[in-house]
Amino acid sequence: MASPKKKLQGLVAATITPMTEHGEINFSVIGQYVDYLVKEQGVKNIFVNGTTGEGLSLSISERRRVAEEWVTKGRNKLDQVVIHVGALSLKESQELAQHAAEIGADGIAVIAPFFLKPWNKVRAEEVLDGIQEKIPTFQGLKFSDTDLLDFAQCVDQNRQRQFAFLFGVDEQLLSALVMGATGAVGSTYNYLGKKTNQMLEAFERKDFSSALNHQFCIQRFINFVVKLGFGVSQTKAIMTLVSGIPMGPPRLPLQKASREFTDNAEAKLRSLDFLSFNDLKDGNLEACS
Amino acid sequence: MASPKKKLQGLVAATITPMTEHGEINFSVIGQYVDYLVKEQGVKNIFVNGTTGEGLSLSISERRRVAEEWVTKGRNKLDQVVIHVGALSLKESQELAQHAAEIGADGIAVIAPFFLKPWNKVRAEEVLDGIQEKIPTFQGLKFSDTDLLDFAQCVDQNRQRQFAFLFGVDEQLLSALVMGATGAVGSTYNYLGKKTNQMLEAFERKDFSSALNHQFCIQRFINFVVKLGFGVSQTKAIMTLVSGIPMGPPRLPLQKASREFTDNAEAKLRSLDFLSFNDLKDGNLEACS
Amino acid sequence: MASPKKKLQGLVAATITPMTEHGEINFSVIGQYVDYLVKEQGVKNIFVNGTTGEGLSLSISERRRVAEEWVTKGRNKLDQVVIHVGALSLKESQELAQHAAEIGADGIAVIAPFFLKPWNKVRAEEVLDGIQEKIPTFQGLKFSDTDLLDFAQCVDQNRQRQFAFLFGVDEQLLSALVMGATGAVGSTYNYLGKKTNQMLEAFERKDFSSALNHQFCIQRFINFVVKLGFGVSQTKAIMTLVSGIPMGPPRLPLQKASREFTDNAEAKLRSLDFLSFNDLKDGNLEACS
Amino acid sequence: MASPKKKLQGLVAATITPMTEHGEINFSVIGQYVDYLVKEQGVKNIFVNGTTGEGLSLSISERRRVAEEWVTKGRNKLDQVVIHVGALSLKESQELAQHAAEIGADGIAVIAPFFLKPWNKVRAEEVLDGIQEKIPTFQGLKFSDTDLLDFAQCVDQNRQRQFAFLFGVDEQLLSALVMGATGAVGSTYNYLGKKTNQMLEAFERKDFSSALNHQFCIQRFINFVVKLGFGVSQTKAIMTLVSGIPMGPPRLPLQKASREFTDNAEAKLRSLDFLSFNDLKDGNLEACS
Repeated sequence: MASPKKKLQGLVAATITPMTEHGEINFSVIGQYVDYLVKEQGVKNIFVNGTTGEGLSLSISERRRVAEEWVTKGRNKLDQVVIHVGALSLKESQELAQHAAEIGADGIAVIAPFFLKPWNKVRAEEVLDGIQEKIPTFQGLKFSDTDLLDFAQCVDQNRQRQFAFLFGVDEQLLSALVMGATGAVGSTYNYLGKKTNQMLEAFERKDFSSALNHQFCIQRFINFVVKLGFGVSQTKAIMTLVSGIPMGPPRLPLQKASREFTDNAEAKLRSLDFLSFNDLKDGNLEACS
Repeated sequence: MASPKKKLQGLVAATITPMTEHGEINFSVIGQYVDYLVKEQGVKNIFVNGTTGEGLSLSISERRRVAEEWVTKGRNKLDQVVIHVGALSLKESQELAQHAAEIGADGIAVIAPFFLKPWNKVRAEEVLDGIQEKIPTFQGLKFSDTDLLDFAQCVDQNRQRQFAFLFGVDEQLLSALVMGATGAVGSTYNYLGKKTNQMLEAFERKDFSSALNHQFCIQRFINFVVKLGFGVSQTKAIMTLVSGIPMGPPRLPLQKASREFTDNAEAKLRSLDFLSFNDLKDGNLEACS
Repeated sequence: MASPKKKLQGLVAATITPMTEHGEINFSVIGQYVDYLVKEQGVKNIFVNGTTGEGLSLSISERRRVAEEWVTKGRNKLDQVVIHVGALSLKESQELAQHAAEIGADGIAVIAPFFLKPWNKVRAEEVLDGIQEKIPTFQGLKFSDTDLLDFAQCVDQNRQRQFAFLFGVDEQLLSALVMGATGAVGSTYNYLGKKTNQMLEAFERKDFSSALNHQFCIQRFINFVVKLGFGVSQTKAIMTLVSGIPMGPPRLPLQKASREFTDNAEAKLRSLDFLSFNDLKDGNLEACS
Repeated sequence: MASPKKKLQGLVAATITPMTEHGEINFSVIGQYVDYLVKEQGVKNIFVNGTTGEGLSLSISERRRVAEEWVTKGRNKLDQVVIHVGALSLKESQELAQHAAEIGADGIAVIAPFFLKPWNKVRAEEVLDGIQEKIPTFQGLKFSDTDLLDFAQCVDQNRQRQFAFLFGVDEQLLSALVMGATGAVGSTYNYLGKKTNQMLEAFERKDFSSALNHQFCIQRFINFVVKLGFGVSQTKAIMTLVSGIPMGPPRLPLQKASREFTDNAEAKLRSLDFLSFNDLKDGNLEACS
């Protein structure tokens, strides 16, 4: 694995896997997608083939090709490309990990077992205990739960170890920043990256009042779509709308987002000034009043 | 209901109901308990007959007597006495609410239905929408979940209304303070109130680094006991240990905390400097290093 | 407690608590209700103040009055009157149990703790192990789960003890009969008692093909209403429809069944010949073709 | 897909995937395994690469090889070989389905989506509604839940269609037989097939008393191991013990069954006469008294 040029911190967009109307992967737009993230969203780290990218719905060879395309198109533009290589079959996970190293990805990530499971449920801070002896190249964790006792104890128990403590519940990122998060991985950074970066900057300069206002602003959108039913399908639709880059439909078992959802989401984005009326294609994000 | 002298904010201790070895309520120590909270913990608000107080395990007449004792003993000492009047039977809840008003409590609180339930689950921010039309004396909410999208949207949507936004998950209070919480209700403020107030003060003066250190410190204790199994029984045992006031055993269906638990908890409290070796009886809380 | 005249077996109707439009208990129809159960449904055992009877939504004094009315009106008509005396407060449960004995009920029943709970979940067969030493008057259990390993092991381990093994999941009663159930407690026996008794009789004479046809017939109705959303409110509406006795609305937190539900349920009952067109008021149940 | 010689009914063993101590698949014992199932257990149908076979922990190419080995070794010995071809990636599932057809398997099976899921949960009887229009070769379902309203409605609504209604909760198979099940798929038929066949035969000849005794007998074993913690790892250990064929350890994320478990399970099997003292290697099953 190539040594990271920059530390894994700040926003990490969980990339969507663009698809054609026939459900095949649309590799042709990935270059535009990279440029959009960097220039329009100010996001320079990506997490590929995760849940947002429907990684587990792709075949192993498709996951390899998608990883290659992001690494290639991201070279000299992105800071870090992290590839999710988790799979239910350990051999296939190992194959994907090896491949990620060969193509020069900056890091790999794996999901915990979710079908056959060990008997005892462990807390994340227990998993991190002594982890560098088992995985010398361990970089950090992506924590996608609202249990901030567990998350903050991960930070507390590992402060000297320089791990990346990435939070995965976008809608309440500020609550994790105050508990020591050093970054975040999520689907909303694809289209709310610029807005979220404003929140991060306010937090860094200790302007917590502004940071909270930015958080509220972001939440008004997420709260709205959560109540309509919000998943990977809806993320694809919103990204297409905001970026102007066609993300296409999702694969089975997911259904394409309804027209009703997309219309409602668009109206909400406008009302929060997240979509300039004239700038629909470029997806310019403006501050929410 | 008497008009509150002070606004309902800051720490609110969810009071334990002291019991004799035979499971009868031990009213005789409530006066000491009030003084302990005010003088040793710096906590001047209480939440009576909630889960920590085994409220639902008491008979209606016992709940009335307990409420009376706290109001009487708390007069001129406590800022706010809030009585939990929730019950599965609406008539009994109404009786308790009326009684709370008659005895001069500062507020009442009710739990959402938890046996027979309405079909649709609603979010707290939906409950608060238009609530003053239905309940003109509505003061605020106690939010006991880690969903900080819902909690922060309650704050965001009601900012001018001066509600009390009290957070109920002690172990991550700092994460809610940054999201706009104006106070907290919890069992740990019975014996970690002083420590937690230090965290609140650091947060108020924007010393977020100190605030986080205090939070970590508190978490090291809570994380430890959570992994041993921590509920109302264990809370009673810890409070007896720290305050020196006998809380007694819990009522069925709970079992008394094990000797093993109490020994382990005591050792942990000492190692964090939450228990001075010489000051066991007074329960003096010192800063965790 | 009076000694039971007959063994507790066969169908036990979980009685509904009739209410006026203002939510007060309508004691005046209980006499008719007893006669309806005995004459029209062939059901001679009842379970009072359970979930179907909104027992936990009533005050303690209301539960006492309801128990008295059923015992009084059921004298010389019903075989067994079992009163549910469970409550979150042990003292109140004891008061109700004592009262049930005083008024001559045939048995009492209690729900397991459901708010504050012990740490370890136990299986019903573990609860029954050695239970007669703890409760010499123990008669049997009402098992309201589909785990038929646990249920059948209760039967297997206690075969000589003459316990009543009552099954509480009406829609699959036949599956429990084959595993050794000696009876059933449920809300559907209020209006499908006659039909269900036909199934029990077919099972007794080992005509399993007919028994299964009866079970399918009953299921077509229950499956239909379950998909519309079926709880205590809907049970009250259906019983009013079938028996002609006004059950009234439920108490908060439940909402009255919608007009749409009641119309749909009525149409389904007719299509299955559970409601004779001419006999709506009497609620005569006919065999489903 | 070859036309099945015999109807898919009766017992179907969910095959274990034998492994070496290094976690590689041990193809060499599959021939013995087939003979053991047919001769010692009287089980002539198998379900390959399901949960019991750790199918989802194997790579796609491993699943293909395992399928080939069972079809080859089962030729002229087994009645039906059904291959589980479900996968999170649809393309991989299609590849496995095609392969199963090419090698002459008798049927394929697929699990419902379990990572990314559609919004609405549907009942099995809703899935079966009109299924032959969508899947002309549809043979039947394997129902692995205790909801016998749903299961029996599948039977009721499809009685003329000659589907196989296979029940997947071994420990209460009798309860499903009375509701119309035509067979069963499960891990226990690997080593309790003979005993379970005795129960099926008693049921067929309407000797329900004997059928229930057999069910109790089987349950005493399953109830015992369930309380110790019983999953795929423990199944492998028990099968090794009973059959004398080395099943080996499981793959990660599962851990090998503990020595303590295996000793306890062995003692229980003996006490129920499921293991003859002299016939440990051959795994002869005797009737439980």
